[in-house]
Amino acid sequence: MTGHPRPMPEFPDDSVGLVTPQTAHFDDPLTLACGMTLPAYDLTYETYGTLNAERNNAVLICHALSGHHHAAGYHDDERKPGWWDAHIGPGKSIDTNRFFVVSLNNLGGCHGSTGPASINPETGRLWGPEFPMVTVGDWVHSQARLADRLGIERFAAVVGGSLGGMQVLQWTLTYPERIANAVVIAATPKLSAQNIAFNEVARQAIRSDPDYHGGWYAEHGTAPRRGLKLARMVGHITYLSEDAMGSKFGRDLRTNDLNFGYDVEFQVESYLRYQGDTFSSAFDANTYLLMTKALDYFDPAAAHGGDLARALAPAVCPFLVVSFTSDWRFPPSRSRELTDALIHAGKPVSYVNIDSPHGHDAFLLPDPRYQAVFAAFMSRAARDLGLAEETT
Amino acid sequence: MTGHPRPMPEFPDDSVGLVTPQTAHFDDPLTLACGMTLPAYDLTYETYGTLNAERNNAVLICHALSGHHHAAGYHDDERKPGWWDAHIGPGKSIDTNRFFVVSLNNLGGCHGSTGPASINPETGRLWGPEFPMVTVGDWVHSQARLADRLGIERFAAVVGGSLGGMQVLQWTLTYPERIANAVVIAATPKLSAQNIAFNEVARQAIRSDPDYHGGWYAEHGTAPRRGLKLARMVGHITYLSEDAMGSKFGRDLRTNDLNFGYDVEFQVESYLRYQGDTFSSAFDANTYLLMTKALDYFDPAAAHGGDLARALAPAVCPFLVVSFTSDWRFPPSRSRELTDALIHAGKPVSYVNIDSPHGHDAFLLPDPRYQAVFAAFMSRAARDLGLAEETT
Repeated sequence: MTGHPRPMPEFPDDSVGLVTPQTAHFDDPLTLACGMTLPAYDLTYETYGTLNAERNNAVLICHALSGHHHAAGYHDDERKPGWWDAHIGPGKSIDTNRFFVVSLNNLGGCHGSTGPASINPETGRLWGPEFPMVTVGDWVHSQARLADRLGIERFAAVVGGSLGGMQVLQWTLTYPERIANAVVIAATPKLSAQNIAFNEVARQAIRSDPDYHGGWYAEHGTAPRRGLKLARMVGHITYLSEDAMGSKFGRDLRTNDLNFGYDVEFQVESYLRYQGDTFSSAFDANTYLLMTKALDYFDPAAAHGGDLARALAPAVCPFLVVSFTSDWRFPPSRSRELTDALIHAGKPVSYVNIDSPHGHDAFLLPDPRYQAVFAAFMSRAARDLGLAEETT
Repeated sequence: MTGHPRPMPEFPDDSVGLVTPQTAHFDDPLTLACGMTLPAYDLTYETYGTLNAERNNAVLICHALSGHHHAAGYHDDERKPGWWDAHIGPGKSIDTNRFFVVSLNNLGGCHGSTGPASINPETGRLWGPEFPMVTVGDWVHSQARLADRLGIERFAAVVGGSLGGMQVLQWTLTYPERIANAVVIAATPKLSAQNIAFNEVARQAIRSDPDYHGGWYAEHGTAPRRGLKLARMVGHITYLSEDAMGSKFGRDLRTNDLNFGYDVEFQVESYLRYQGDTFSSAFDANTYLLMTKALDYFDPAAAHGGDLARALAPAVCPFLVVSFTSDWRFPPSRSRELTDALIHAGKPVSYVNIDSPHGHDAFLLPDPRYQAVFAAFMSRAARDLGLAEETT
C-alpha cells in the first residue's frame, strides 16, 4: 500500500486489499525427479502481511490442481478476490496481522511461473509438451529456493488443500527442519485407482482433441478447448458431493418442458457446460496434463514398501489434518489413513472431520467449524513461535 | 436345436446353447412421447426355452444402456455367451426349463432393431441424428407389441437391471394387467443430478468430437470414436466400485518404473483405454446419446408432483427389488426409495441388498446370494402360475 494519490477502491476490512504479483528468477539449474534439469526458471508469487525481523512468521500456501499464486486479496483488474480469500486476511484463519503469507504459482503452471507456455531457452521455442514432468517433490524443492530468496529459513507453517496438502506432507519429509507446522486439508497420502482413472479420462479428453496437435497447439494458433472442457466437467463432478449437486440442481429443468433434444435441459447440464467453457478458455492444457500426473505419482510410502508410517519418519512438526464428510474425491478415510500413520509413527497430529455438504470443494469455502479449528491451530502455532498479536 | 447333421459345438449343460436372433417387422405407426411417430419399425429379439400351451410362462428381459437382445447362449460366430448368461438357462435363476424367455434390442438400438443407423423410409437416408428421442415408456409400448406378435398376453415376469429395471417399473404402471411379476435390479426411480451430470459429460464428449458431424458421421464415412471412447471410460468408472477398482488394479504399474510420460503407466489406465477402444469400434454413437437421454427422462413420479407412491398406484404384481452394497451409480438408497414407495402404496415387495464388491456391474455377475434370491422369487412365480418343473 503506497502513498499513490489515486483513490483506493474499497475492500472489506478483513481483506489483504490490493495485491501485486511478483516474479523471482532462478539461474541455478533444478534437477527434477524425471531426470531432466531445468536450466533456469521463474516463480510468480504474492505475499500478504509483513515478514517480521526474526523472519519466523512466514506461511507458505501450496495450491491445488488448477490453482495459482493469487490466493487472497484483489488484483487491480478483477472484482473477485483470490481463491482462498475466505481463509487468508486480517483476523482470518491465516491471520495476516501475525503471519507473512507467501503464495506461489507452481513450476509447470500457467499463471506466470515457468511452464509449458514459457520459452525453452535451449530451443527458443515454447516448451509445450516437452516441458518436463514435475512432481510434488520437485515443487517442494523449488518452493524451498523461493524461501531462500525471501530470506525465510523456516516456515511457521506450510498449508494446502487437495494437491496442495500433498505438497505440505512432502515438505515435512524433504525439509523437516524448515517447517514448524503442517496443515494438510482434504488430501490423501496417495491416489486411489479410481482417482487415477478420472485423471486418465481427463488426459485422454485433452490428448485426443484434434486441436491438441501433440501438445504443440500454440504453434498452430489453437488450443484443445473441447478436451479441456470435458476434463473440467468430469473434475467438477468429483469436486461436488452428490448431495450438494442434488440440492443445488436436483432434476430442475431449465425451461418448463422437456425439449427432447440435446440442448441444455437440466440445470446441472448448464452449470457443467459453463464451468467447462470458462475454464477451457483460461487454463493451459499442457499444464492441466502435468498437474494430473503429479497427482498420480504422489506416493511417499512407495519407497518404503507401502509403509506410510515408516515413510513419515523424517517429519517432526505438529500436523493439522482436515477432511470433509461429503468429500468423495479424497474422502475422510484417506485423511484418517494419514492420521493413523502419523500416530503410528509417533508424530503430533490433530485430525478433524468437518461436517459439510459441499464435497471436496468444502476446503475452499468458509465454514464456522472449519475456520475455528484452522484458526485455533494457527494461533497455537503463532504462540509457540512467540509471534506478537500484531506484527505491523 | 434342429436335426442338422453338422456336429454341434459343445456348450455347458446349463447353457441355452446356440441361439439365432429373429426380427419382427411392425407396420402400425408408433407414436412416441416426444410427439413424433415412427411409421414402421423392426425389433430384433431372441427367445430361449419353449412357450407353453397356456402361453403364460413368458419372461421378458429388458436391457441396459449398452445392452442388446443377446442375453444368453451362444451365437455361431462368438465364443462369449450373452450378457446375462449367468442368470438365464436350464436350472439358472431364470430357468429355461420352466420359462420361455424373450430378449429384445430396444428401439433406437444398434443391434438390429430400428435405430439411428437404420434407413428413414420417408427420406431414404439414414435416420442418424433425426431418429426420434425414445423414452422408457416408448420402449414398453413397443415391447407390448412384440408380446402381441408372439401371442403373449401376460408375462410371467418382466426382468431387468439398471436402465432395464426402469423398463420393468414402467411395465407395472403402463400394462399392469400384462405383467405377473416384476424384478427390478440395480435401478432407480429417477436419476440424480450427479447421474445426469455424468451422462452430460458423455454426450458432450460425443457431440464435440469433430467426427460427429452433427450426427451425420456415417454419411462422412467416419464415427466419433474418440468421443464414444471417453463416454465409455467415464461410464466404466461409475460401473465399478472404488474398492473393486482398487483391488483389481490398485496403483500397480504396467512396467516396473515410472515413465514420466503419457503412455499407459498404471494398470487402471490400460484397462480403461481398452474398454473404451473396444466399445467405440462396436457401438453406435447416436444410439448411445439416445440411451443416456432415456435415462435422464425417466421419472414416473414427475407427473404426480414427485409423489412416487402415488405414481405406483396402478401396479398390482409382486415386486422383487435388488441392490448391491457397493453400487454407487444407483446405490442401495435408490432401491430403498423405490421399495419404501411400494410399501407406502400397499404393493407386495421383497427387497434385498446384496453384499458385493463389484459396484453397479454386480447385477451382471454370478453371486450365490443374488442367485438364490433371484431363483427363489422366480420359482415362487412359476408355482403361482402353475408352471410344471419342466415345460419341454
